[in-house]
Amino acid sequence: MNIAVAQSGGPTVAINASLAGVFKEALDSNQIDTVYGSLNGIEGIINQNLVNLNELIKTDDDLELVKLTPSTVLGSCRYKLPTYDKDALVYGKIIEYFNKYNIGAFFYIGGNDSMDTVNKLSKYTAENSINIKVIGIPKTIDNDLCLTDHTPGFGSAAKYLSTTVQEIVRDSAVYDLKSVTIVEIMGRHAGWLTASSAVLHANDETAPHLIYLPEGEFSQEKFLSDVKAQLEIHNSVIVAVSEGITLDDENYRSGKVDTFGHAYLSGIGKLLENLVTEKIGCKVRSIELNVMQRCSSHLASKTDIDESVLIGKTAVKAALSGKTGIMMTFKRISNNPYKIEIGEADTSLVANQEKTFPKEWICDNSTNITNDALDYFLPLINGEVKIKTQNGMPIHFKINK
Amino acid sequence: MNIAVAQSGGPTVAINASLAGVFKEALDSNQIDTVYGSLNGIEGIINQNLVNLNELIKTDDDLELVKLTPSTVLGSCRYKLPTYDKDALVYGKIIEYFNKYNIGAFFYIGGNDSMDTVNKLSKYTAENSINIKVIGIPKTIDNDLCLTDHTPGFGSAAKYLSTTVQEIVRDSAVYDLKSVTIVEIMGRHAGWLTASSAVLHANDETAPHLIYLPEGEFSQEKFLSDVKAQLEIHNSVIVAVSEGITLDDENYRSGKVDTFGHAYLSGIGKLLENLVTEKIGCKVRSIELNVMQRCSSHLASKTDIDESVLIGKTAVKAALSGKTGIMMTFKRISNNPYKIEIGEADTSLVANQEKTFPKEWICDNSTNITNDALDYFLPLINGEVKIKTQNGMPIHFKINK
Repeated sequence: MNIAVAQSGGPTVAINASLAGVFKEALDSNQIDTVYGSLNGIEGIINQNLVNLNELIKTDDDLELVKLTPSTVLGSCRYKLPTYDKDALVYGKIIEYFNKYNIGAFFYIGGNDSMDTVNKLSKYTAENSINIKVIGIPKTIDNDLCLTDHTPGFGSAAKYLSTTVQEIVRDSAVYDLKSVTIVEIMGRHAGWLTASSAVLHANDETAPHLIYLPEGEFSQEKFLSDVKAQLEIHNSVIVAVSEGITLDDENYRSGKVDTFGHAYLSGIGKLLENLVTEKIGCKVRSIELNVMQRCSSHLASKTDIDESVLIGKTAVKAALSGKTGIMMTFKRISNNPYKIEIGEADTSLVANQEKTFPKEWICDNSTNITNDALDYFLPLINGEVKIKTQNGMPIHFKINK
Repeated sequence: MNIAVAQSGGPTVAINASLAGVFKEALDSNQIDTVYGSLNGIEGIINQNLVNLNELIKTDDDLELVKLTPSTVLGSCRYKLPTYDKDALVYGKIIEYFNKYNIGAFFYIGGNDSMDTVNKLSKYTAENSINIKVIGIPKTIDNDLCLTDHTPGFGSAAKYLSTTVQEIVRDSAVYDLKSVTIVEIMGRHAGWLTASSAVLHANDETAPHLIYLPEGEFSQEKFLSDVKAQLEIHNSVIVAVSEGITLDDENYRSGKVDTFGHAYLSGIGKLLENLVTEKIGCKVRSIELNVMQRCSSHLASKTDIDESVLIGKTAVKAALSGKTGIMMTFKRISNNPYKIEIGEADTSLVANQEKTFPKEWICDNSTNITNDALDYFLPLINGEVKIKTQNGMPIHFKINK
C-alpha cells in the first residue's frame, strides 16, 4: 500500500521534521511502497494535487534539509472539512482519490482545526468500513493542544523567543536612562509562549520583569502601576505580553476574524507603548516578533526537532498496527532527566479545544511564572541543530509546486 | 601608560568584538599597563565613570564571551561634544580625568557622530601639545561611513537579514493564494542593509522580488504598479523596503528628531501594507525587523567578528606608533578570494558625513541591485560563529554598572 501526508494550519519550525519522520518510517517499512505528499493540506486531496515524495526526497541529505526547513514543504491550508450531512460529496471525492492512489493511511500534521478534520474523516471511514487509517500529528507554536504534554514546534518557538529577548535585553540597556521595552508575543488565547520567556531567569537575567498572559489578571491601570514599580528598581524594564491578553478597553481590536472564526490578534504592544508614553513619559519601544517566532529554523531546538521526527515515525507505526482517528501525543515521564514517551489521544477530545496556561503556575500578582513552570519549559529549548549553509545562508529544501 | 576605550551610538553585534580587539592588543603590549572602560561613551569620562577592564575580563573565555555579546558591554551615549568655543570647560574636565588615570590613548568605537568627537578631541590635544592619542574605530549596521569599504557590524546585520528574510519567504509561501509581504529594514538614509537582502538571489531564491532603497526612484504609484506586475509572476511577493525611502506623501512621518537632529524613521512598512490592502486587496503583511537587525549576535557573521577584532587591535598599534585623530578603515583588496587590509582616514573627512548606496548598483527600474553589488555583499556575511550556551540559551558577558 501507499500512504499520504499533508500539513495544515499556521507554519512552525518543526512541521517538516514530522513530515521527515513519517517519510523515514515509511521508507524503512516493507509494508509501504510510496509516500505521497498532498499539496496545501487536505485541499491537495480534494483538488487532486498529490506529489510523489520518494521522487523528491532522494538522499539522506535531502531528508536532513527537510527536517530543518521552516514552514511547510507541502504548503498548508485553512480549509475546514464540512460535516457529512452538510457536504457528503467531498467525502466521496477524498476516498475516491485515496483509492486511485491505493492510499492505506493518511497523516495530517496540524493544530486543533486539523484534528477536527482527522476526527471527521476517520469517523467516516470507520462507519463505512473503508480501510484507510487517519492519524493526526500535532503541531503548533501556541502549545494549546489538549491531551499532549506539549506540541511539536513549541520548543523551537520558545528557543527563538528566549534567545531573541535576551539579545533585546542587551540592546535595551545601552543608554543611561529609564526605558521600557514591550515585546509582543504570539500564542493566540494561550499564554504558553509568552510564559516561556521566563526561562531567561534561569540564566541569571532579571528580565523579563513583567510577564502578562491571557490567563492572568490584566488592566491598563495595573499595567501602569506594575511598570512604575519596576522602573524604581531597573533602568531598563522589559515587558513580555501575549497578543491575546484581554484588555478592559476592547475598542482597539480590529474585529476581523479568520475562516475558523478566530479573531486576528495584534496591536497590543503598540497600544501599551502609547499608554507608557502618555501616562509615564519615559523612553518606550514596542517590538512585535511577528512570524519570526514560527519560522526561525536556524534557532530550532534540537529536542523539538528530534521529538517531531519521532512523533511522525510513531504515527506511521500506529497506522500500521491498525489505529485510526487518533492524535499522537507526548507524555512527560520526568523533568530531570528529561524523558518523554509517545502516546495517543482520541481526536474527538482534542478537536476545537484549547489548552490554556495553568493558573497555578502564575505568580507575583500575575506578572511572573512559578519554578514548576520553569521546570516544564527548560528541557524543551535544549540543544542546538546544525544548519547547512551556502554563501553564509541556511539551505532550505524546496519543491516546485 | 594606560589606555581608555568607550562605545557610542546605536548598538551592533560587533561593537564588543572591537572592544575585545583593543583589550587583547593592549594585553599583549608591554607599553600598556591597564585598559579602562568608560561607561556610556564619552559621558563616562566627563562623569568620571571608568572601570578597570583587566579586573573584569579575567580569562580567555571571558574575552570570547565579550566578542560575541551583542550591544555594548560598556553602555553607550548620544552625547555630542560641543565645540571648544562653546564649552571649553568640558575639554579641561576630560583631560584632567585622563591625566588622573595616566591615559595615553583613547579609543572611541562608534559611528559618524562619534568620529566628530574623535575629531574635536584630537584637534584639541594636538593644538595644546597634550600627549593623548585619540583614535576612532568605526561601527554601524547602516554601513554609511565614508572612506571605509564597509563598517564593523554591517556584515552581521546583513547575515541576520538574509537568514531571516529567507525564513519569511518560506513562511509566506504556505497558502495557495496571492499575497504580499513587506519587510521594513533599517539603515536610516542609506540603502546598504536593505540592498544586502538581495544576497538571497545567490542562493536561487527569486525573493526579494522588489527592493526599494532611499537612493532609488520611489512613488506610491510606481510601488503599486511594481507589486501588481510581480503578482502576475509569483504567488507570494516579497518586498524589501528601507525605512528611509522618500515618499511623495511625507505626512506619515512622525516629525520627531533625536539629539543629533536625525529624524526617527518608522512606519513605511505599515503604510505600504495599508496601500496594498486599499488599492490591490490581496492578503498583505508588513514585518518590522526592529532592533533584532542590530542585536542578533547568535547570527553574527564570522567575517564581521574577526574583522572587528582585527580593526580594534590595529587601532591600538596605530596609537602606539604615534597616530591620532584618525578613524581605522577597511580597504578591500579583492572580492574573490576576499581580502581586506586595515587603513586609516582623517576623522575630519568622516565626521557627520553619510555614504549612500551607489546609484550605479541599482537596476531593474529601481527594484533590484546589480551583480557587482552582490559581489560586494556576499563575502561580508560569510562564516558562522560558535555561540556558548547554557540551558539552551546563549551566554552573554555582563558587567555590573
